[in-house]
Amino acid sequence: MKIKDYMPILEWLPSYDKRQLPGDLSAGLTVGVMLIPQGMAYAMIAGLPPIYGLYASTLPLIIYALLGTSRQLAVGPVAMVSLLTAAGVGSLAVGGTETYIALAITLALFVGLIQFLLGAFRLGFLVNFLSHPVISGFTSAAALIIGLSQLKHLLGVEIARSHYVHEIVVEAMGKIGEINWSTLAIGLGGVLLIIGAKRLHKAIPGPLLAVVFGILLVWGMGLQALGVKIVGEVPGGLPSFGIPQIQIATAQDLLPIALAIALVSFMESIAVAKAIQAKHKDYKVIANQELIALGAANIGGAFLQSYPVTGGFSRTAVNDQAGAKTGLASIFSAALIVLTLLFLTPLFYYLPKAILASVIMVAVFGLIDVKEAKHLWKADRSDFWMLIITFLATLGLGIEQGIGIGVILSLAIIIFRTSRPHIAELGQVPGTPYYRNVERFDTVLQRDDLLIIRLDAQLYFANIDFFKDRVHELLQARLPKVLRTIILNAESINAIDSTAMHALSDLVEDWRKDGLAVYLTGVKGPVRDAMVKGGVTEKIGKENFFISVQEAVDEHLQQRPVQKNSIHQAFVLQTNVET
Amino acid sequence: MKIKDYMPILEWLPSYDKRQLPGDLSAGLTVGVMLIPQGMAYAMIAGLPPIYGLYASTLPLIIYALLGTSRQLAVGPVAMVSLLTAAGVGSLAVGGTETYIALAITLALFVGLIQFLLGAFRLGFLVNFLSHPVISGFTSAAALIIGLSQLKHLLGVEIARSHYVHEIVVEAMGKIGEINWSTLAIGLGGVLLIIGAKRLHKAIPGPLLAVVFGILLVWGMGLQALGVKIVGEVPGGLPSFGIPQIQIATAQDLLPIALAIALVSFMESIAVAKAIQAKHKDYKVIANQELIALGAANIGGAFLQSYPVTGGFSRTAVNDQAGAKTGLASIFSAALIVLTLLFLTPLFYYLPKAILASVIMVAVFGLIDVKEAKHLWKADRSDFWMLIITFLATLGLGIEQGIGIGVILSLAIIIFRTSRPHIAELGQVPGTPYYRNVERFDTVLQRDDLLIIRLDAQLYFANIDFFKDRVHELLQARLPKVLRTIILNAESINAIDSTAMHALSDLVEDWRKDGLAVYLTGVKGPVRDAMVKGGVTEKIGKENFFISVQEAVDEHLQQRPVQKNSIHQAFVLQTNVET
Repeated sequence: MKIKDYMPILEWLPSYDKRQLPGDLSAGLTVGVMLIPQGMAYAMIAGLPPIYGLYASTLPLIIYALLGTSRQLAVGPVAMVSLLTAAGVGSLAVGGTETYIALAITLALFVGLIQFLLGAFRLGFLVNFLSHPVISGFTSAAALIIGLSQLKHLLGVEIARSHYVHEIVVEAMGKIGEINWSTLAIGLGGVLLIIGAKRLHKAIPGPLLAVVFGILLVWGMGLQALGVKIVGEVPGGLPSFGIPQIQIATAQDLLPIALAIALVSFMESIAVAKAIQAKHKDYKVIANQELIALGAANIGGAFLQSYPVTGGFSRTAVNDQAGAKTGLASIFSAALIVLTLLFLTPLFYYLPKAILASVIMVAVFGLIDVKEAKHLWKADRSDFWMLIITFLATLGLGIEQGIGIGVILSLAIIIFRTSRPHIAELGQVPGTPYYRNVERFDTVLQRDDLLIIRLDAQLYFANIDFFKDRVHELLQARLPKVLRTIILNAESINAIDSTAMHALSDLVEDWRKDGLAVYLTGVKGPVRDAMVKGGVTEKIGKENFFISVQEAVDEHLQQRPVQKNSIHQAFVLQTNVET
Repeated sequence: MKIKDYMPILEWLPSYDKRQLPGDLSAGLTVGVMLIPQGMAYAMIAGLPPIYGLYASTLPLIIYALLGTSRQLAVGPVAMVSLLTAAGVGSLAVGGTETYIALAITLALFVGLIQFLLGAFRLGFLVNFLSHPVISGFTSAAALIIGLSQLKHLLGVEIARSHYVHEIVVEAMGKIGEINWSTLAIGLGGVLLIIGAKRLHKAIPGPLLAVVFGILLVWGMGLQALGVKIVGEVPGGLPSFGIPQIQIATAQDLLPIALAIALVSFMESIAVAKAIQAKHKDYKVIANQELIALGAANIGGAFLQSYPVTGGFSRTAVNDQAGAKTGLASIFSAALIVLTLLFLTPLFYYLPKAILASVIMVAVFGLIDVKEAKHLWKADRSDFWMLIITFLATLGLGIEQGIGIGVILSLAIIIFRTSRPHIAELGQVPGTPYYRNVERFDTVLQRDDLLIIRLDAQLYFANIDFFKDRVHELLQARLPKVLRTIILNAESINAIDSTAMHALSDLVEDWRKDGLAVYLTGVKGPVRDAMVKGGVTEKIGKENFFISVQEAVDEHLQQRPVQKNSIHQAFVLQTNVET
């Protein structure tokens, strides 16, 4: 490992090509302009004053630019992590209070430490245990929860914070009479403006237009007098340095949520980073270094009043489309936010909260993925149910519970499936040295005196009994005195453990007692090694291992000359349809 | 399902062959004679008065004879289950009290209900998740704990009940001065007698001899006056009918231990039943029916003062050796215990507890399996550590914790391994249509314009990224403009999920964009079905699927005619040593 591996900026900055500057500059500024409304809106999801979304859009972006391996990833506040922050901190303090803010900042420190350590100990692979259906079901449910959490701002009514969709909907239904119609009109106007701008051209900053529209409308028409809730006083100036508070009691409560955020936010970030990298190919995204970079961004941010951040879907896509070629774009974005904090905060006084709600709703409802569910219904029914269960568990039991259940269930299904593997009886494809499943290929040929079995799984403790039972059935189906040889095609056995080796030795011994010859074919390197070490090769005898089924069949034909008057005397291969 | 499937006795009783009677009778009586000392000793392990071991040796044996699929399995009290009973009930009541006894009986009911339901819902396969090293490590540790729990009876000193081996050893060391030498002498005499009898001939009932020796010695020499602890008054008569007490508070405490006992005892029972069945072949052991039979035996027993029972190793082996051919043997054993309860209990007054301790110690120390650990050290290092961890966890953390940690860890390792599968680059075995790993076969031939890859695992969410990274590396190692075709040998891909199908489609699309042809070979039936349903077959194109690597190579040679002046113009297969 070189220093460049730990600080990828040293890779690209020294050889920086001036021609990349216009792209980086315009992309950086575009993302910065997006960050202003999004940051404020997402801080609102997290239960924090809007300004904290801007604080989280400064130092973390710069740190990621120094350490991250992706050159287009746009780090900062994102909807999902903001919601998880609200879920975690909301149970420990009242939203918006000083304690609440302090806890959210401490949470960023914990998230950062966990990510940093996971990266340092090379545990980035853990994120692979989140399957596509689990991510899809979880994201859709979280999007629904986030979207509905903004309903109160869109309608201008009071709705108690809840993570249960039905509670929010029921409460909102009961308050239809109290709707503030001016608020609703502004919010819907914002939604239409953002969607319309996007349809017109991808490069138009719809959310910023909505913000300008909202501010001008409230300021011009004095709508706050009609009960339209506005952001109000936004303190100017940069975030101040402070050491995050750590108390042992709250630390214990924050750690589980910090772990969930660390993993979920890394997952979101690495997914988008890899997707964008696939288009570029002039660099590589390295999972463990990404963990270290995001970890450092969160740790550093925590000392400048930042709550947890990660690489987000939408801004990264915009960053790339707008021409970002290096991490310099992120530094330009951060600079724009710094300028905003220094000089522009008074402009946000009249910003209606309904506009921020519209920014959030348009963003997250786009994440609800009905198409994938429809696709899985046809493509993979079991994965479809996995998606639905994760979706419902997230809605019904909670954010972390939903993803936890999804992960455990998807691993349990994998284990369960490998415990009942596919086992095929093989026959010869006529005129070839290839042997295929007799139940799938009607024309393959079988012999009465030969049983060829292929096990389609690793052989280990959880499936060895299933294997033994199935082989026993196949043996029972044969004429006992006619069968002379069993060929075990091991080409699909990808691994073998000691329990399976014990059982295999016993099986071979039993078969030999019954006068059967046993040949193994196509045993793979790693399995061969294990069998030599386990003494199974010696027991079975090296001479009974063959590279291909055909060679073992040839051996069978040679070793077991036909007996006269036996039913297989003709030595003719029969089709399985006839036998 | 026929009625015979639920009541296997209807299978063998109507066609009972009189010639089997001598074997059944002698085996039944031999096991009954063993049951007297063992039952009393195991009840002592469970913290119950010795008579309860005899109670547990009546009705459960008869119920199993009616419902069980094994014809030699000897059901009754066993050491491991007795220890688990002591561990579970011991935390709720004081050993030997009425409450304690009532709880042990309720526990039998719970164990029975759990086993019965597991069997009725066909969940017998769950026991397959206990791997050989986990069972071995757990059994050795439990044997050590059980054996040492009897140290107090062997030495004639008071040692507080503990499941921590070091505590027992330390306390015993401190009490060396208090040892009752008469007790120790009787105990060691018992040990020598049992071992000696076994060495002389397997059929000699050593434990019964030891019991007779102990009773005669104490009675003849009045050793109880020297402080030798004796069993004392044993109430005569059969167990009385009673409805097990169930209180909600204690039920909650008992359920986890009942679940552990239900699984562990089933595991012990099915293991020995299958081992014995393998020698007979005139019947089949069916896991789910075994659960139903053991469940019914425990439920029924609970109404006649029985604590949890299961099929035990040693008595089953003796039952088989002594000639048992049907469940009738078990009924004879139960009859002998009934006669003992009715007429012989006064004989046990002078039975020294040290003799019962010697019976237990000889039995359980034989279960400590050092040979398997030694074998695994050489055969499979990872399984060796699994055994050691389970052993230490059982000793250090407790019985259920030990087995729980073992199961979870062994499943986690399976998942972890499949998440980093073996991926091989293949070359042609010269002069054959077979393709093998270039890193293992020095002589295989490779072409510059062709990359053949084999993935040795099912392709699913947890390993798809690893697969992509590894393939990317293999591609990077090739000359980019020379490579024209990628052949993916799928013969070892035993399953594919929707996440992997998404990724595979994307990969193929990317490769085609780079001008590469992609062929899949040897895709198996179940994977083929999944890929058709998932729409991947359509995307890749049916014409790109081949039955064997050789056919795909032929297609490559035909479709991609050699370019003049390119470095592979000679069209010569090169050995991988040269490339």
